[in-house]
Amino acid sequence: MPERRDTITFLSDYGTVDEFVGVVKSVVRSLAPHVVVVDLTHEIPPHDVRAGSLALARAMQYVAPGVVLAVVDPGVGTERRAVAVEVADGEGVLVGPDNGLLAPAVAMAGGATRAVELVADEYHLPSPGATFAGRDVFGPVSAHLCNGVDLGELGVPVDPAGLLPGIVPLSRIEDGALVTEVLWIDRFGNAQLNAGSDELPDPDADRLVLRAGTATRTVARARAYGELGVGQVGLVVDSYGLLSVCVDRASAAAELGLDVGDVVSISVPSDEEGPPASTSPVTLGRPRGGA
Amino acid sequence: MPERRDTITFLSDYGTVDEFVGVVKSVVRSLAPHVVVVDLTHEIPPHDVRAGSLALARAMQYVAPGVVLAVVDPGVGTERRAVAVEVADGEGVLVGPDNGLLAPAVAMAGGATRAVELVADEYHLPSPGATFAGRDVFGPVSAHLCNGVDLGELGVPVDPAGLLPGIVPLSRIEDGALVTEVLWIDRFGNAQLNAGSDELPDPDADRLVLRAGTATRTVARARAYGELGVGQVGLVVDSYGLLSVCVDRASAAAELGLDVGDVVSISVPSDEEGPPASTSPVTLGRPRGGA
Amino acid sequence: MPERRDTITFLSDYGTVDEFVGVVKSVVRSLAPHVVVVDLTHEIPPHDVRAGSLALARAMQYVAPGVVLAVVDPGVGTERRAVAVEVADGEGVLVGPDNGLLAPAVAMAGGATRAVELVADEYHLPSPGATFAGRDVFGPVSAHLCNGVDLGELGVPVDPAGLLPGIVPLSRIEDGALVTEVLWIDRFGNAQLNAGSDELPDPDADRLVLRAGTATRTVARARAYGELGVGQVGLVVDSYGLLSVCVDRASAAAELGLDVGDVVSISVPSDEEGPPASTSPVTLGRPRGGA
Repeated sequence: MPERRDTITFLSDYGTVDEFVGVVKSVVRSLAPHVVVVDLTHEIPPHDVRAGSLALARAMQYVAPGVVLAVVDPGVGTERRAVAVEVADGEGVLVGPDNGLLAPAVAMAGGATRAVELVADEYHLPSPGATFAGRDVFGPVSAHLCNGVDLGELGVPVDPAGLLPGIVPLSRIEDGALVTEVLWIDRFGNAQLNAGSDELPDPDADRLVLRAGTATRTVARARAYGELGVGQVGLVVDSYGLLSVCVDRASAAAELGLDVGDVVSISVPSDEEGPPASTSPVTLGRPRGGA
Repeated sequence: MPERRDTITFLSDYGTVDEFVGVVKSVVRSLAPHVVVVDLTHEIPPHDVRAGSLALARAMQYVAPGVVLAVVDPGVGTERRAVAVEVADGEGVLVGPDNGLLAPAVAMAGGATRAVELVADEYHLPSPGATFAGRDVFGPVSAHLCNGVDLGELGVPVDPAGLLPGIVPLSRIEDGALVTEVLWIDRFGNAQLNAGSDELPDPDADRLVLRAGTATRTVARARAYGELGVGQVGLVVDSYGLLSVCVDRASAAAELGLDVGDVVSISVPSDEEGPPASTSPVTLGRPRGGA
Repeated sequence: MPERRDTITFLSDYGTVDEFVGVVKSVVRSLAPHVVVVDLTHEIPPHDVRAGSLALARAMQYVAPGVVLAVVDPGVGTERRAVAVEVADGEGVLVGPDNGLLAPAVAMAGGATRAVELVADEYHLPSPGATFAGRDVFGPVSAHLCNGVDLGELGVPVDPAGLLPGIVPLSRIEDGALVTEVLWIDRFGNAQLNAGSDELPDPDADRLVLRAGTATRTVARARAYGELGVGQVGLVVDSYGLLSVCVDRASAAAELGLDVGDVVSISVPSDEEGPPASTSPVTLGRPRGGA
């Protein structure tokens, strides 16, 4: 059912040094002046569809109802499809390239209820070149959706099951250790893993052994960064419910040489483990609220 | 004719690390709460009037009606004039220093219809120092324009023909080659040249020879980055209708050592050219829509 | 008295590479759609409470009435208090951690009239982990304040006098020299000092001697950067009324090796001073307006 929408949540790899983002917002402002654009981030590394899809998925449960405009689009102007995907029976529509970028967010929102390929070019801007689909296709289409244009007007229906899936790595148990992958390293150097605390070999252990590359470290479970001793590597449940490797007021990624995609395994200390690599004294606070 | 405006499009070299941009927006929010500010970019290199003027000109045809606030102002507090320039009979007003920053955008908008020097300081903020005209002069003036204050109230009329012109380099043909200059290198490493495809020595040639500094490369014409083979340097018509040197999913600027202002010449391959420097196989797709 | 507010001014150390800021804004947009968020900056260095408190204090007199949301919060999830502090009898409310971040801004606004610790968790978001208080506590509380929820509903009253003070260094006179500290180095390399021009040993002197680390330089008083000769180090009164070390169209911080927190002393040239280290010719313009 067509309806007026008033928020566009915008993520891209455009950066903010060039005027790309501002031009897309100018187009939206001209076509649908009532809309507020909320920027998630525009600093997805250039062409990094996976990083974009993970950031979008993390944010998805918090975005306001309306349109989600996502552009990480190395295949711009080629045969990759431009799509709009409706979720939650129209509470949200995701607009972007069909290259896996939208898929994890669509799944987070409960799956697609409709999808179209954006071939109705009367809703696009005429363009001298085919390299800026955010300005010429995705931005205008998002604005028209906010003006109440029905999804079906924007192109031809496609089977949501045929949209390119995202690739989200799974953790596994191997020789008693939880083998995970680094999904995200944030500004503070915290390294988010693709596993929750219930997947740990011993969810109640205060200390665990972490292996990444050639590094082996004893790490402390903690509820907050500030509970860790100086220089102590910790494992917290982050704000998305996933395990995160961290150091208080410093970068765990720098400390351990971690990068996105690295394998991190976590195991219970064995008696033969020898002295821990880090011997910083740690006093774990009792979590407030009993969580 | 005085009228209420509701959009300020904002470009500067303030960066976003300091709070300059936020303070200007706070001033606007206090004086004209109905206004939406659209940021084009604030990462123009410090003091780089030319880069600012080119970014503004590129964006100009897409900005929403209202005020354009542009501040790249190395001469702040000196004798350079602060001006407001009306274009399109009032559909837009550009506000900023008279140092060439606004000139290409004014030209893109069809030329100035009126201009004033901003000397009516009842529309400025009092200030302890003269170093932040965005906060104290340009921002408040933009807000007052949005509140319906007539341009003429803001200062004394100046002859638009007397405004400092921008400097836009022209391409030329020399010994059969198109000699261009790099106008802009974007986040993705694409290098925009100051020429369109109709200026090429052979607009229909699939391959051309590009010379920049000591590098000579055979380059392929393409419609989209994704049509190029891995590592192949290409020449596309970008989203502004200008030629752009590019590499698929990589930086052409890094590949060729290009910087803004560099000279790039493009010629038809001669029989004596020898084997091309790059021999990546390329299959050019047929442009969709016949363009 | 509860009242509807429509602006949230937002400062943090979240950066804009991750989606933290966008998620907080999404939460605000969902809870209080009428609110406009004005970003001051999100590039406060990670965990740098002092830098955040100074940026907030600089901006404070310009922020629009409403809520100020400030998050530089290394102690997130620990015993540090989350607070909301009312200033100017309700014209403004500052929301953030009680770690000194808010204190200088509160002082700039004339002091606190009320304060609460934010323990009423019905105004927070439920959260799987305690590491993102901007999203789960400070953002939602700011939105509820804008919706007219009274400060008193958000938690338990605390004595404003018991809030953690900020640390603002004081300048002093020592052996006839003004001894200052670098408070801030901006994007342009200007170094703001913690002293006004009336504290100079000779406020009317055209030239002074500046010492910082091992460097000794003769510096020129100027009203604007553009009044300085090429390469000449100058001392201007900046837009906050404080002395600032500068170089025209170049970075004074780079020129003198200055960093935040460095000591800079300023004295009157003595007859035994010898030739100045810098001999660039300088013609000082007469300040306009007689300031």
